[in-house]
Amino acid sequence: MTETLHADAPAQPGATPYDQLMREMREIATLGSVGAMLGWDQEVMMPDKAAPLRGEQAALLSSLVHERRTRPELGELIAVCQADTELMADPLAAANLRGLRVDYDHATRLPVSLVRETAETTSLAMHTWREARERSDFDAFAPWLEKLMELNRRTAEHLGVPEGGELYDALLDSYEPGMRAAELDGIFGELRAGLVPLIRELTESGRAPDTEWMNIPLSIARQEAFNRGVVERMGFDFQAGRLDVSTHPFCESAGPGDTRLTTRYEEGQFLSALHSTMHEVGHGLYEQGLPKAERFGQPLAEAASMGIHESQSRMWENLVGRGLPFWEWALPELQAQAGSEAFSGLTPATLYRGLNRVEPNLIRIESDEATYNLHIMLRFDLERAMLRGDLAVRDLPGAWNERIQSDLGLTVPDDARGCMQDIHWSMGAVGYFPTYTLGNLYAAQLWEAINAAIPDLDEQVRRGEFGALLTWLRQNVHAHGRRYTAPELCQRATGRPLSPAPLLGYLRGKLRSVYGLS
Amino acid sequence: MTETLHADAPAQPGATPYDQLMREMREIATLGSVGAMLGWDQEVMMPDKAAPLRGEQAALLSSLVHERRTRPELGELIAVCQADTELMADPLAAANLRGLRVDYDHATRLPVSLVRETAETTSLAMHTWREARERSDFDAFAPWLEKLMELNRRTAEHLGVPEGGELYDALLDSYEPGMRAAELDGIFGELRAGLVPLIRELTESGRAPDTEWMNIPLSIARQEAFNRGVVERMGFDFQAGRLDVSTHPFCESAGPGDTRLTTRYEEGQFLSALHSTMHEVGHGLYEQGLPKAERFGQPLAEAASMGIHESQSRMWENLVGRGLPFWEWALPELQAQAGSEAFSGLTPATLYRGLNRVEPNLIRIESDEATYNLHIMLRFDLERAMLRGDLAVRDLPGAWNERIQSDLGLTVPDDARGCMQDIHWSMGAVGYFPTYTLGNLYAAQLWEAINAAIPDLDEQVRRGEFGALLTWLRQNVHAHGRRYTAPELCQRATGRPLSPAPLLGYLRGKLRSVYGLS
Repeated sequence: MTETLHADAPAQPGATPYDQLMREMREIATLGSVGAMLGWDQEVMMPDKAAPLRGEQAALLSSLVHERRTRPELGELIAVCQADTELMADPLAAANLRGLRVDYDHATRLPVSLVRETAETTSLAMHTWREARERSDFDAFAPWLEKLMELNRRTAEHLGVPEGGELYDALLDSYEPGMRAAELDGIFGELRAGLVPLIRELTESGRAPDTEWMNIPLSIARQEAFNRGVVERMGFDFQAGRLDVSTHPFCESAGPGDTRLTTRYEEGQFLSALHSTMHEVGHGLYEQGLPKAERFGQPLAEAASMGIHESQSRMWENLVGRGLPFWEWALPELQAQAGSEAFSGLTPATLYRGLNRVEPNLIRIESDEATYNLHIMLRFDLERAMLRGDLAVRDLPGAWNERIQSDLGLTVPDDARGCMQDIHWSMGAVGYFPTYTLGNLYAAQLWEAINAAIPDLDEQVRRGEFGALLTWLRQNVHAHGRRYTAPELCQRATGRPLSPAPLLGYLRGKLRSVYGLS
Repeated sequence: MTETLHADAPAQPGATPYDQLMREMREIATLGSVGAMLGWDQEVMMPDKAAPLRGEQAALLSSLVHERRTRPELGELIAVCQADTELMADPLAAANLRGLRVDYDHATRLPVSLVRETAETTSLAMHTWREARERSDFDAFAPWLEKLMELNRRTAEHLGVPEGGELYDALLDSYEPGMRAAELDGIFGELRAGLVPLIRELTESGRAPDTEWMNIPLSIARQEAFNRGVVERMGFDFQAGRLDVSTHPFCESAGPGDTRLTTRYEEGQFLSALHSTMHEVGHGLYEQGLPKAERFGQPLAEAASMGIHESQSRMWENLVGRGLPFWEWALPELQAQAGSEAFSGLTPATLYRGLNRVEPNLIRIESDEATYNLHIMLRFDLERAMLRGDLAVRDLPGAWNERIQSDLGLTVPDDARGCMQDIHWSMGAVGYFPTYTLGNLYAAQLWEAINAAIPDLDEQVRRGEFGALLTWLRQNVHAHGRRYTAPELCQRATGRPLSPAPLLGYLRGKLRSVYGLS
């Protein structure tokens, strides 16, 4: 009824420049967190007719955040702090200031005109992509993709090519700081060399596991109860988060104490819902493990990279959720929840085998753990070639289809199921795709280290105990925030640089055993 | 994944000062609407541990809104527009500018130090009130109430006493612009003079209707379905709003296309839930009827007063929802939804009679339509006396208890059920209580006019048709926003100034008939 007016707090006497900087970053993050809340609400709660208002709200908040993130005074404050040798001797403060400098430079290097042109183009391109994909009409989308590639080229030039790198690296660096395309070439090349024969061996074995049982119907209410039980068991704190339903599952972390997950349910697809949920919980546990209560707005409370973020979701979804020990615990829970005969006939081995069936699929998001990575490498190679100008946008469908044929042995029937299937390029995101396979790579390499540190992990999982696993992740990954780059974090947590060997070894071991080939 | 940065829109060449002003007001309203969304989320969705973050978010948004509402440039822009005689010849623009001037003066007349002190005191006072009420410990709360009265006195002095008015009017004017305490004295006095004997006649008749059936249990799922059906039938647009559950029902209108209602359910209290819902829908229909799509941020898209707002909620809750025609339509709906024998024995007359039982109650919010107004008058008189200094805060319990005894014939057993029952004073709200009875008065007077305009309204309601009623409200109340003050609106819509006669006539007619006295 009465409006509460919060005047600005009085200036704090004796606050150091670093204190001031941290206070300003927390305020900016708080403003950003409001935008995150609105984003969550838009997908989960908002009535349709509120869309125009929501657009106005989001645009206004974004411009307020952007204005504060690019103020010259902010850059000066960072510089003052970085010139303070005593302060810089504190490794935590130094890591914070390094991150803030990167972010500030990133935000200020792009001319406002380019940012605006990109935002406007992206908005129209996404709209066009959505409609053109319906009709599988690549020609309608192509001019937008050309324009977006051009804008990405200009963006990369403004951001600056990292030392010894190429134009693509300027973009990649936004998602995966410290990673280079040339390095991905090497890692992806080795991964590919191992995956292609493995996939061929499996698919040609004639021993594909049965997956018929996957379509056993289960009411959404029962699925919700089962999912919620698993999520609680995984260690997600429901007092600091929620699990709701949306068309596309996601994890939104608005800030300390507020991490919201979504999933989606269909009666005949209980496993799809569970794995969506476990994937988002992986992201959510990372967000809940970041030291935000004290450090919200600081790089030390942010994720190390998109690849590391994805490693957390994929570890829970795949390395835990598609493993036999997990199902030895989870199947009885599921059967108790389902209470139907159709489920009581299942065994953990049936689920385990069916969940690890390998079968090339035209669609990335419907692909299994092994072939998925071939999808990513294809996108990485093609977007890099387009950015460079080595591949003309008009030649994209041909290049795509050829590669799907050679990699997966599939014929692409139309571009909707080919090069137009993903939203990413229409959003102007170039350099993002590789972080998915990086997530798989980091997850597998971390998993090796975790199993070395917790020798009875399988036994624990078989009892539905995930506490030791989560504690390890908290201590070795979550707690560090952006203190280390992803490569540094990998080195510290696993004792060596990122390598394709753990992922290859894991997939080879699991899949050959599932197919009875070992 | 990529952050969308919305730079400020380019300056619009040729925009008049009035255009600029409207644009600025829309932006401020948009920012305010974000705060409203957060408020809704906090009551309906937010996980517990997000409370500190939510506090930071709300404080930051409030300070941003306050800063923009009090900028000298804004006052100058209003002055420039008001000096434009051509513009002021447009009655809509003139009404907007009048409202903006009032709001700007209101916002800027209060020193920041007073605003801050009030906010801080209120926050602590609410906390103390909550705890002290548990123990019925008025002495613990009294110093806070004294402090809040003092702050209200200072606030009223800064706001300025309206011409010919008293200090209380400066506060009342914030909620009910154009209303004066002296005028309330007259209206309330007449109302009281009619109510007291009516209530005595009813309660002494020995003909109190049966209300046992009210506790028939009904599952929450069935209540939800029944409530939703009624809400849709009333004309609430679910594409532009929601209905959820919260501890205290409320209506939050975040802006165009987004009006969110809450209610609460208990298995043994299906009528309480329905009337909470209908009350909030009344508020919600007003919000959905204001011309916000085009005019969000303008006084023309805001409610005329708290009393008019309350008239809309009370009309639907009481004049519709406690009427016999409504139950002739609604009871079969309820019976179909309930599908139980306990409900099939009910008749519309049973519900109608039980819902209109008059019985003095210590608690305002549990009171019937007639005695409720005595509760309000008591609060109005006592808060006015405290503000003036005619009643010492320490003497409040005595004055309260005496008045409850003389008005309602009840003995107050403790202050928790006496002068500490409402949250309002602890929030620093003085001048707010009268708007509740004003709501009843406006509702009854509008209802007379509506029945004159729609002679077969009862017949329509009996068929569950509310379209003509809503259209009348849209045209005569909602569409005008703050174009007219509440007294002006009342004059235009009903052809005469506010009078206690319609409410008295309505209550007398309905209640004496229910009690078989006419």
